[in-house]
Amino acid sequence: MATEIEIGLGKKGRMAYSLDDISIVPSRRTRDPQDVSTTWQVDAYEFDVPIIGAPMDSVVSPQTAIELGELGSVGVLDLEGLWTRYEDPTEQLDTIASMKGSEAIRYMQEAYSEPIKPSLIKERLAQIREAGVTVAGALSPHCTEEFLSAVLDAGVDLFVIRGTAVSAEHVSQDHEPLNLKQLIYNLDVPVIVGGVSNYTAALHLMRTGAAGVLVGFGGGAASADRNTIGVHVPLATAISDVAEARRDYMDESGGRYVQVIADGGLGLSGDFVKALAMGADAAMLGAPLARATDAPGKGMHWGAEARHSTLPRGRRSEVGTAGTMEEILYGPSHTADGTTNFVGALRRAMASTGYVDIKSFQKCGVVVTPTR
Amino acid sequence: MATEIEIGLGKKGRMAYSLDDISIVPSRRTRDPQDVSTTWQVDAYEFDVPIIGAPMDSVVSPQTAIELGELGSVGVLDLEGLWTRYEDPTEQLDTIASMKGSEAIRYMQEAYSEPIKPSLIKERLAQIREAGVTVAGALSPHCTEEFLSAVLDAGVDLFVIRGTAVSAEHVSQDHEPLNLKQLIYNLDVPVIVGGVSNYTAALHLMRTGAAGVLVGFGGGAASADRNTIGVHVPLATAISDVAEARRDYMDESGGRYVQVIADGGLGLSGDFVKALAMGADAAMLGAPLARATDAPGKGMHWGAEARHSTLPRGRRSEVGTAGTMEEILYGPSHTADGTTNFVGALRRAMASTGYVDIKSFQKCGVVVTPTR
Amino acid sequence: MATEIEIGLGKKGRMAYSLDDISIVPSRRTRDPQDVSTTWQVDAYEFDVPIIGAPMDSVVSPQTAIELGELGSVGVLDLEGLWTRYEDPTEQLDTIASMKGSEAIRYMQEAYSEPIKPSLIKERLAQIREAGVTVAGALSPHCTEEFLSAVLDAGVDLFVIRGTAVSAEHVSQDHEPLNLKQLIYNLDVPVIVGGVSNYTAALHLMRTGAAGVLVGFGGGAASADRNTIGVHVPLATAISDVAEARRDYMDESGGRYVQVIADGGLGLSGDFVKALAMGADAAMLGAPLARATDAPGKGMHWGAEARHSTLPRGRRSEVGTAGTMEEILYGPSHTADGTTNFVGALRRAMASTGYVDIKSFQKCGVVVTPTR
Amino acid sequence: MATEIEIGLGKKGRMAYSLDDISIVPSRRTRDPQDVSTTWQVDAYEFDVPIIGAPMDSVVSPQTAIELGELGSVGVLDLEGLWTRYEDPTEQLDTIASMKGSEAIRYMQEAYSEPIKPSLIKERLAQIREAGVTVAGALSPHCTEEFLSAVLDAGVDLFVIRGTAVSAEHVSQDHEPLNLKQLIYNLDVPVIVGGVSNYTAALHLMRTGAAGVLVGFGGGAASADRNTIGVHVPLATAISDVAEARRDYMDESGGRYVQVIADGGLGLSGDFVKALAMGADAAMLGAPLARATDAPGKGMHWGAEARHSTLPRGRRSEVGTAGTMEEILYGPSHTADGTTNFVGALRRAMASTGYVDIKSFQKCGVVVTPTR
Repeated sequence: MATEIEIGLGKKGRMAYSLDDISIVPSRRTRDPQDVSTTWQVDAYEFDVPIIGAPMDSVVSPQTAIELGELGSVGVLDLEGLWTRYEDPTEQLDTIASMKGSEAIRYMQEAYSEPIKPSLIKERLAQIREAGVTVAGALSPHCTEEFLSAVLDAGVDLFVIRGTAVSAEHVSQDHEPLNLKQLIYNLDVPVIVGGVSNYTAALHLMRTGAAGVLVGFGGGAASADRNTIGVHVPLATAISDVAEARRDYMDESGGRYVQVIADGGLGLSGDFVKALAMGADAAMLGAPLARATDAPGKGMHWGAEARHSTLPRGRRSEVGTAGTMEEILYGPSHTADGTTNFVGALRRAMASTGYVDIKSFQKCGVVVTPTR
Repeated sequence: MATEIEIGLGKKGRMAYSLDDISIVPSRRTRDPQDVSTTWQVDAYEFDVPIIGAPMDSVVSPQTAIELGELGSVGVLDLEGLWTRYEDPTEQLDTIASMKGSEAIRYMQEAYSEPIKPSLIKERLAQIREAGVTVAGALSPHCTEEFLSAVLDAGVDLFVIRGTAVSAEHVSQDHEPLNLKQLIYNLDVPVIVGGVSNYTAALHLMRTGAAGVLVGFGGGAASADRNTIGVHVPLATAISDVAEARRDYMDESGGRYVQVIADGGLGLSGDFVKALAMGADAAMLGAPLARATDAPGKGMHWGAEARHSTLPRGRRSEVGTAGTMEEILYGPSHTADGTTNFVGALRRAMASTGYVDIKSFQKCGVVVTPTR
Repeated sequence: MATEIEIGLGKKGRMAYSLDDISIVPSRRTRDPQDVSTTWQVDAYEFDVPIIGAPMDSVVSPQTAIELGELGSVGVLDLEGLWTRYEDPTEQLDTIASMKGSEAIRYMQEAYSEPIKPSLIKERLAQIREAGVTVAGALSPHCTEEFLSAVLDAGVDLFVIRGTAVSAEHVSQDHEPLNLKQLIYNLDVPVIVGGVSNYTAALHLMRTGAAGVLVGFGGGAASADRNTIGVHVPLATAISDVAEARRDYMDESGGRYVQVIADGGLGLSGDFVKALAMGADAAMLGAPLARATDAPGKGMHWGAEARHSTLPRGRRSEVGTAGTMEEILYGPSHTADGTTNFVGALRRAMASTGYVDIKSFQKCGVVVTPTR
Repeated sequence: MATEIEIGLGKKGRMAYSLDDISIVPSRRTRDPQDVSTTWQVDAYEFDVPIIGAPMDSVVSPQTAIELGELGSVGVLDLEGLWTRYEDPTEQLDTIASMKGSEAIRYMQEAYSEPIKPSLIKERLAQIREAGVTVAGALSPHCTEEFLSAVLDAGVDLFVIRGTAVSAEHVSQDHEPLNLKQLIYNLDVPVIVGGVSNYTAALHLMRTGAAGVLVGFGGGAASADRNTIGVHVPLATAISDVAEARRDYMDESGGRYVQVIADGGLGLSGDFVKALAMGADAAMLGAPLARATDAPGKGMHWGAEARHSTLPRGRRSEVGTAGTMEEILYGPSHTADGTTNFVGALRRAMASTGYVDIKSFQKCGVVVTPTR
């Protein structure tokens, strides 16, 4: 395993690095940006770009799911979000976007206490399917059993099970926990599951048959896990650990390749590029897409952690707007702040380091920098 | 011992880490938050939660000691504080809370120069006992001999001897220093003593027969030891060192288990959780409880160091208010800033890492992170 | 090679240090500042000071190129800048300097879309030549083939090929990439090429016959590469790596000494001095010279990265003014902020450490400091 | 020698630590603060406290030199300061204290261009001697030869030769450099010389016969060496290195003990205490004493570096006022910001760690802390 340092006489710990701690280094070869490939594939689904819209109400509505699909990406609808609780969530979205910071979470706790309607799950997914794009929806592990049949009735192309810390060995005293292996075996759609943040948990999740695992705790800028419960694994280390699990699992499974998807804390295009450089195959983006002028969050961004009824561990954060969804993905940029042209940035980084596709770019050199 | 680095040719030193430098990492197993146990026990006294209200006038009054007891915790009254100097300290508390920052210490030096009355010690402790909760009071090493008989007359369940740096081998030229071993042997109540911050000092304190040792210098946010006298041991390292002393002492004593109690610098719920993860059995909280709307500090917080007559080494700091004492302990939270629902945060962290009780949670994995 | 640390199980990386992370240490000998030599030579051209004005429109106009030449330095004109696009770029320069930050890049994208005129390349270079100073111009690798004949017709003493990441092995699918080796062999003027940031890329560039290599990405304060594309190599490490390539290339080539020129991120005189201490022979300065009251940027500073049509990776940053070009180079200073008297600072540092010329000063001792 | 890290392929460097990077750790023993000894001795002169007033016009005037002497300390008059240039420098002191920051250095360059008068050197020193306190004056290496006879005529008890970087092997092309060994041999007063910042330079200075060496560059808060010329050695490492030189020199000289005096960058009482913990015998204080209500700087602070005619490397910084000179030395404090009661802070730190005198306190344990 890895180098450990002694924190005190009774405890050792590894050093763990965030994406801010690392930088990509050029090699001896360069390329033209237009020559590199940014395509990404999970199961039978191929996308132009390794970007997934995160299942957060500030990012993915049925409308933006369609838009992302048409742009060569895919948006995952949060099936426990406002769109499956309210016939028309416009009022709730507007209120969350306009409330003062100190009151927003209290209001969200209330707005999200409205029950989820299976009929709305079907309706929303059908709307996306009609547009002819990839249909993807997410449930938390806790609610998967209850609403899965509604999801299957509606039909999805990709199914995402997403929580803050998800394991393949959940233990409960008063209910039978979700059996991921059984569930994935029975489903005929690829399942992406997470978040995980370390080698062992990732390896166990891969063994359940998941098509992809989410690395991170989700929420990023909107998350407050470190302040509230002290749990946190910096993303550069987490991605690299899970990428190693992918390699080992591929060996033990005789060649199954599980997609490693960075999730959370990728606020700027440079973070997105570095996540791939650390070994991710794709990235689930929240805040960057919430900055779209056409995103449902209207300049605000929040995740599922922020609406927990007794222990919210997320914020509603103001991310502002940076351009259309298309400009955020493909540019052109008119500013150098890393908020637009994510794909152009990836192309430029791959060109500067001489790699032709994402798989080879994962091998690029990086340095650790003590200061920024 | 531990890895040392060369600071200069003539001096080596260990690296020492604060709780801010570390994070808890999930393992491969998760649990339901409601399944974990947060109980804590010292001697015959068992508590629902591993939280002790710090003997600071901004935190524990007779009234909040009762309240904490009813909430399953325990509050320690500072027996050298305003409540044993004044029949009714309301005016002094109000004045301290309302003064401008620059004048507060000077006023406190004056207010705390009023002599301590043994009769008030008895009266305050009696008031707490009448409420049927655990009775706990604290004296400094310097004043223990003078006021101990008053304390014993009144009767306490837990007795705390607390100073900034307390050792079992205090040397004095003009008076016989407090013989901790003798004193603890003679008392028939469990004694908690500190602060200590390293293995050797802790081991010697444990040998005096103490039921628990306080790790840290107390005061945390309110302390200025590092600026004023240059003395400081970051808490993550200090707790881990003392936890190792506990293990070694348990061996040499044939099984006596001494409680390790983190004291000071635990401002947010994440800090509290990490203190236990580093090896503490419980935590003495100051600032977090001073934020209670019903705390005597009225949004201000200060400790004994701040009232020293010639060398104050603490501040009166504005901590604001975050909710009732009950909300701070048990939630619900309506914000993700780590100021409320400390017990919920602990349950969530234990659940995310798969541990069932505090003793096993002390073994959880942690990482050291160079940036935050 | 160098010490690597494990970032995660699947990725290792070197530690890389910025100039801010290091400091020069005195030795046992001191000298008089007036006794040290600051001269610098590339091919047949000798300069009083190891300073080159960067090819940026905020720094070098035909006028300031002349001024720098007369001061014993050399200014490189950006032959793709405003001066070769407009007969009289005064209006464009004024507009860029006066626009609000958020609009500046959009305007620059427009202003720099005006085609480059070969006739203006000749005219500007001729104007500099008439003044009797060293004539130096820069093109990007992308445009070198198209405009080189105009440059050669006009005649230059030093030719600079400068991009953000330049390699000797550029790969392109739709055009024949610039063959640096062929080009340099055919030219009869010394060529300086860059930026590079690592040993291997530098070694390959040196083998093309370049007289000097630029280390860094250019732009410094005005660059946003790290945020936008995640690519960055801290300068202290980059210079030292390239200096090692110079040593190894000198050995393999039987004695060819290639100038190592630090480029970008040298905002203060202390940075400039430290760049030489790390092994640079000279420094290409942007922001420091843009602060001249007589610089064309009028207190604003920007580089070629900021005008990219779809992915700008630079800012127009406000650097203010600090004195005349002469005061910035030679003082006197009336402030200790490191913005004036760069040569005096170099002399003082060399005197404090006892070295007589830049070549020996490159051996001076440095320390790495964790905090600043 | 010490652990080195590779900065780049061509350069290695040691890690060097500032006092901010370290903290003192308690041991297993504690003492009463009143039992510790703070006395300090250089040659035949014994002082109550290990504190020297720095030769800076904002700190030591003839009046404050007397005051410091009466308080058991010693103040060193800058014999190249305003007091030896002007019959009555009140106007100059007032003007410097009242000017706007941006204009102060320019005015100082002018005010300090007034020639030094040998007669005033004699007059000022005589005034201090009349008060019956230790008489100490400082010259820079550059001016020592010119004004030494005036100093000797007047008579001093301690003579200080102080520059930013002073070596025993100064090399000059146009004048015979100061022969420190000869000079010290000829003088019959103890000489303190510096600043030095490393083992070798310190060892060579000790061999000249100096009674003490100054460690650091002086000026501290008022110094800008790092920004301007890139030269800097963090003080914790520098003191420890020089303390090791003291040990080795004591061995090679058969027992000569040279005083190691920390100089510069000791802004708060915690810094002062830590300097001694790292191995210093005493500290030369600037900013802390400039904060005296009765200091000549009137809340402003500056050193000799700030008045250099062409390359000022210091600032006039606003330090404010904290109390009388006596309160700064001995308290009482009414604030915990580390600006008053330096001696009380030292006593408290020694008591907390169980040491009885400064010589033994130099052995106290320290830790390196990555964050503050």
